[in-house]
Amino acid sequence: MKQAIVVRTDLGMGEGKTAAQAAHASLKAYEAAEDDAVSEWRRGGQKKVVVAVESERELLDLNEAAERRGLPAALVRDAGHTQVESGTLTALAVGPAADADVDAVTGELPLL
Amino acid sequence: MKQAIVVRTDLGMGEGKTAAQAAHASLKAYEAAEDDAVSEWRRGGQKKVVVAVESERELLDLNEAAERRGLPAALVRDAGHTQVESGTLTALAVGPAADADVDAVTGELPLL
Repeated sequence: MKQAIVVRTDLGMGEGKTAAQAAHASLKAYEAAEDDAVSEWRRGGQKKVVVAVESERELLDLNEAAERRGLPAALVRDAGHTQVESGTLTALAVGPAADADVDAVTGELPLL
Repeated sequence: MKQAIVVRTDLGMGEGKTAAQAAHASLKAYEAAEDDAVSEWRRGGQKKVVVAVESERELLDLNEAAERRGLPAALVRDAGHTQVESGTLTALAVGPAADADVDAVTGELPLL
């Protein structure tokens, strides 16, 4: 079981902003997951991997791919108080779900 | 209501590793929080701030300060598969809790 956190690198977000968006996405997808998946993921140490995309289009496509597979997924839309325009999509998390299912969606992306 | 995520900058972690540790800490403190605090935080948009420390000692002191105030808090100890020694403390999250309570513990720290 793992969760992939996908962050946009084309927005020029700083390291702290990026970390906050990753945490938002992680928590939101966790809340969308079934209890069984969360329990199993927790037993395995809540494995997380953070990967990068360079556009909003990629985030949206990955979100659709996750939803087609029935995986818990959550997009983060930033309130825009700092660094990015209000309403900007900044990150996506996929899972917790089986490694193979998550990899089928995000496995080709480079590590952040 | 907010949550402060405190990350060590003295370990030389990359941006993705840092984001993953922040997400670990965020989720762990969220799980330690009372339902009422989580609900109120969610209504306010799950505000998160990511700040920096430069040593394990600071993380431990902040964790103690949070516990003394009765705030939900969680330290992250890395499994050490990559970049840092196994067992290294990498991050801490404090809250969700009232802004003033969180600020009393982490308010003096620089943003990451």
